[in-house]
Amino acid sequence: MPHISIVTLGVDDLRNVARFYEALGWRISPASVDGTVTFLQGDNIALSLFDRHGLAEDAHLAAGRPTGFRGVALATNVGSEEQVDETLRTANRAGGRIRKAARHTDWGGYSGYFEDPEGHLWEVAYNPHFDLLDDGRISLPLGD
Amino acid sequence: MPHISIVTLGVDDLRNVARFYEALGWRISPASVDGTVTFLQGDNIALSLFDRHGLAEDAHLAAGRPTGFRGVALATNVGSEEQVDETLRTANRAGGRIRKAARHTDWGGYSGYFEDPEGHLWEVAYNPHFDLLDDGRISLPLGD
Repeated sequence: MPHISIVTLGVDDLRNVARFYEALGWRISPASVDGTVTFLQGDNIALSLFDRHGLAEDAHLAAGRPTGFRGVALATNVGSEEQVDETLRTANRAGGRIRKAARHTDWGGYSGYFEDPEGHLWEVAYNPHFDLLDDGRISLPLGD
Repeated sequence: MPHISIVTLGVDDLRNVARFYEALGWRISPASVDGTVTFLQGDNIALSLFDRHGLAEDAHLAAGRPTGFRGVALATNVGSEEQVDETLRTANRAGGRIRKAARHTDWGGYSGYFEDPEGHLWEVAYNPHFDLLDDGRISLPLGD
């Protein structure tokens, strides 16, 4: 069955970005290797922060600085509009940049976006149509 | 507690990319909206495919075509070297591009990379040092 075990973010300043995610509640694992990779445990998934050039090299890709829209958003769904506001405030205080202040959406929810200190994009959303499980996963309606 | 509920990938050809992920075992949810967004359920997380321009616009970002390394890799950890090979073969047959054939790594594991039809990067890895849970999550060692 398909899954995502780890989301790896390539970054220039490992320590700074690790501090940011720690302030958001992610827990740094002692499996991290100083200066190379930082592993962070979340409820349903792990994050890893990896030197941007090292990650590109590991994947056999050129490490050029990204321009244009990177085409990825990581979404944290939470249980209420208040929790959306609170999460965005926490991200902002920790050094993230609010890209879009939270607002009501045309799909009946409430959402906003922030970027981490190196531009990785996160959406924080309350979606009344999706069941939110204890560990932060959503349970999508599925057909037969 | 921190979590990632959904990873949203901006794409140009929703239908083509949805077929690719279906071939990898992700299940399309009827919550999807034809031509706008495709939601796919995985074991520990949901994927959503969203028109690349629409996603950029939603996040208040310019939608320019990405160049350079996008700086994100989604990792699927599996239980054996054979499963790494098998997952990469499945991705390749479904229209993904193998970026790096699987090989033994200097951290004692076995891993390879593929890109989906629009260049989103995935690592497939066997890591004997991390506990792999039933739903594909890993359990990182944590200090006190």
